[in-house]
Amino acid sequence: MSKNIPEKVSNRLTLYHSILAEYMEEGIESISSPQIAQRLGIDDSQVRKDFKLLNNAGKCRVGYLVSELKDSIEKTLGFATVKDAFIVGAGHLGLALAKYDNFNSYGLNILALFDNDPHKIDIQVNNKQIFHISKLPNLAERLNVEIAILTVPRQFAQQVADYIIQSSQIKYIWNFTPAVLKVPPHIKVWNENLIASFVQFACKDFE
Amino acid sequence: MSKNIPEKVSNRLTLYHSILAEYMEEGIESISSPQIAQRLGIDDSQVRKDFKLLNNAGKCRVGYLVSELKDSIEKTLGFATVKDAFIVGAGHLGLALAKYDNFNSYGLNILALFDNDPHKIDIQVNNKQIFHISKLPNLAERLNVEIAILTVPRQFAQQVADYIIQSSQIKYIWNFTPAVLKVPPHIKVWNENLIASFVQFACKDFE
Repeated sequence: MSKNIPEKVSNRLTLYHSILAEYMEEGIESISSPQIAQRLGIDDSQVRKDFKLLNNAGKCRVGYLVSELKDSIEKTLGFATVKDAFIVGAGHLGLALAKYDNFNSYGLNILALFDNDPHKIDIQVNNKQIFHISKLPNLAERLNVEIAILTVPRQFAQQVADYIIQSSQIKYIWNFTPAVLKVPPHIKVWNENLIASFVQFACKDFE
Repeated sequence: MSKNIPEKVSNRLTLYHSILAEYMEEGIESISSPQIAQRLGIDDSQVRKDFKLLNNAGKCRVGYLVSELKDSIEKTLGFATVKDAFIVGAGHLGLALAKYDNFNSYGLNILALFDNDPHKIDIQVNNKQIFHISKLPNLAERLNVEIAILTVPRQFAQQVADYIIQSSQIKYIWNFTPAVLKVPPHIKVWNENLIASFVQFACKDFE
C-alpha cells in the first residue's frame, strides 16, 4: 500500500477500476474523466482529483489510457506482494466469495476453502479445493497463509475462530459472520458488517 | 432513521448490537460499557460516548439493561417502518443473504428471491420462496417493494438491472455484483464493494 488513501477515495477508485475492467473487455483503449463521472453520477472534478493520488494515471491526449489507469489503481490500492487467504466455511457465502474473481486484481489470492462437512471435501470451486478443517494448520504453515475469511454459521463462529487461532499461524480474520469474536491481542479481526453498510446507504436516501 | 449517525458510529453500534443479541440468548440481563469495550478492543469512553447518541439506552445501577439497550440501538439505526426487499439472483450469494437473519433486527425484511433458472423456482429458503424473475414486477407492485438486492453474476448484472428498472417500481438497487450499473437518475444504486472494504482493513494493518 503506497499511500494512506481515505476510505471514500479508495471506494471510488475500486468503482473506477470496475469500469476500466469493462472497457478493457470491450477493447476500448482510452477513457475520459467525464465518461467515468457520468457513469457514477458524480462530478468530473472529483474524478480528476482522485486520479491525482495515483502514480502514472496514464494521461493521454484524449483522456486516460485504460490499461495504464487500471494498472495504476491496482498498484495504488493493491499490495506490493500478493496476500494469500483461506476461506473457512464452504457454505453459500464461502462459495460465493471463492467465485468472486475481483479480489485477484488487488492481490488478494484465495488458495483454498475449509469445511467440516465430509460431503464437501475435495470438491473444486473456481479452481480452489475444499479441504477438511483439520488440514488448515498444516496448509497455513506450508503455504505461509495468515488471512482467514470466516464464513461459517454464526453459532459456530467463535468455536471455529478459537480452533484456527490455537492451531495455526493465522493472524487476520476477515469475519463475515454477525458474531463478535473474542480473540487474543495478536489477532486482528476485520468485521464485514453488511447491516451497517445497509444502514449507511439507506439513511442517506430514506426519510 | 431518527438522526444522522456517522458511519463509524453506526458500524460500532451494530457490533454492540451483536454482542447484546448474544447476551440476550444467554439470558444475561445487564452489561457494562467496559465489558463491551474489552470485547471489541476499544476504549470504554468511546462506548459511553456512542451510547449518548441513543434515546433511552437502558442505563441502570450496574451498567445497562441488555434488552433496553438492544431495542434502543434498533430504534436509532433501524427504520420507523419495516423496509421490504427482494433478492434478485438465487445463486450462492443470494441464498447466503436470504439466510442472514440479522437484517430483520433493523427492519430490513427480505420477502422473496427471484431467478431465471427453472430448477430453482418454487424452492423455499429460510421461509422465502424463489420465484421466476418474470413475476417480480407484479409482486413488487402488489407488495409495495422498492428495494432489490442484486446478486446475479457480473455479466448479467446490467441486463437484469435494466429489466427490473423498466418493468417494476423498484427504486433502490443494493448491488452486490462488481459491475458498475448504468441507471436512470430516479434509481439509487448502493454499491456493496467487498474489495474496497478489504483494502481499507488491510491498509490499516499491513505494511
